[in-house]
Amino acid sequence: MAVQTLQDLFIETLKDLYYVEKTLVKSLPNMARKASSPDLQAAIESHIAETEAQVGRIEQIFELLGERAAAKKCEALEGLLKEADEVTQQINDRQTLDAAIIASAQTVEHYEIARYGTLACWAAEIGQAEIAQLLEQTLDEERAADDKLSMLAENSVNQQAVA
Amino acid sequence: MAVQTLQDLFIETLKDLYYVEKTLVKSLPNMARKASSPDLQAAIESHIAETEAQVGRIEQIFELLGERAAAKKCEALEGLLKEADEVTQQINDRQTLDAAIIASAQTVEHYEIARYGTLACWAAEIGQAEIAQLLEQTLDEERAADDKLSMLAENSVNQQAVA
Repeated sequence: MAVQTLQDLFIETLKDLYYVEKTLVKSLPNMARKASSPDLQAAIESHIAETEAQVGRIEQIFELLGERAAAKKCEALEGLLKEADEVTQQINDRQTLDAAIIASAQTVEHYEIARYGTLACWAAEIGQAEIAQLLEQTLDEERAADDKLSMLAENSVNQQAVA
Repeated sequence: MAVQTLQDLFIETLKDLYYVEKTLVKSLPNMARKASSPDLQAAIESHIAETEAQVGRIEQIFELLGERAAAKKCEALEGLLKEADEVTQQINDRQTLDAAIIASAQTVEHYEIARYGTLACWAAEIGQAEIAQLLEQTLDEERAADDKLSMLAENSVNQQAVA
C-alpha cells in the first residue's frame, strides 16, 4: 500500500502498534513466569491489565477514524522479543535473569514511548485532538511503567544480582 | 556463552550496543540522503559525528574492564532498521517521508536510551563509577538527539507534510 499523506502514515503506524499491544498481551505472562522477584512479577502482571486497556484504546481510535482495526506485523517488536529471548536463555542465575528481564522490558517500553509520542504529535497535526488525547493517555502509562521498572531495578533487583 | 553475574550481563549488553553504534555510523548517512529537509539532513549529519565519538567511548569502557572490544549482532536494531526500510519504501511524498524518517530515527534513539540507562545503572551497581559516568554522557547525548528530532517534527516537518 502506498503512503502519500501524514494521515496514511498515521494509520499504518497505528496498525503496527496494534500488533505490538496484542502481541504483548500474549507474551507478558511468559515474562512474568520467568521472573523470580515477587515485586517484578506483580509489576509485569499489573502491566498486562494496562496493556489490554491500551488495545481497547487503539480500537477506539480506529473507530474514530472510520477505519477497520487491523494489525500489521511489527518487525521492530519481533527483533526486540528475539533479543530478549536470546539473552534470557543464556542466564542461569535467577537474580541476574530478573535484571535482564527488566532491561528487555524497558527496551519494549521505550519502543512504545517513541511510537505513542510520534502518533500523538501526528494526530494533533492532522486535527484529531480527541485521538491525540487518547494516545497521550497511553504514553503516560508507558512512561510510568518504565519508571516503575527503573525503580525496581535500582532499589532491589540489581542489588540482589550482585549480592 | 553462559551469563552468571551482572558483570557478565553488562559485558554482553555492551557488545550489543557496540554493534548498534558501529552499524549506525554506516547507516545514518543513507538516512540523511533520503531526507529532503535541510534541517533534518543537518540534524542527522551532526548525529553521525556524535555516534563516532560514542563508538570510541564504548571502546574506552572495554579497555577499562580489561576486555577486548567485540560487537555482537543486535537483533533489536536489525528489526528497527528493517521496519524503517519497509516504511520509507512505501512513501512517495517527500514531506511525509521526512516525517517517517524522524519517527524511525526516534525508535532507534529510544532503544539506545533504554540500553544506556540500563548499562549506566548496572555499572554503578558493580562499582564502576568511571564507566557509569561515560555511559551517562552518551545517554545525555541520545536524549538531546531525540528532543532535537521532536522539535524538528513539531516545528517544521509535520506542518509541511500536511500542507
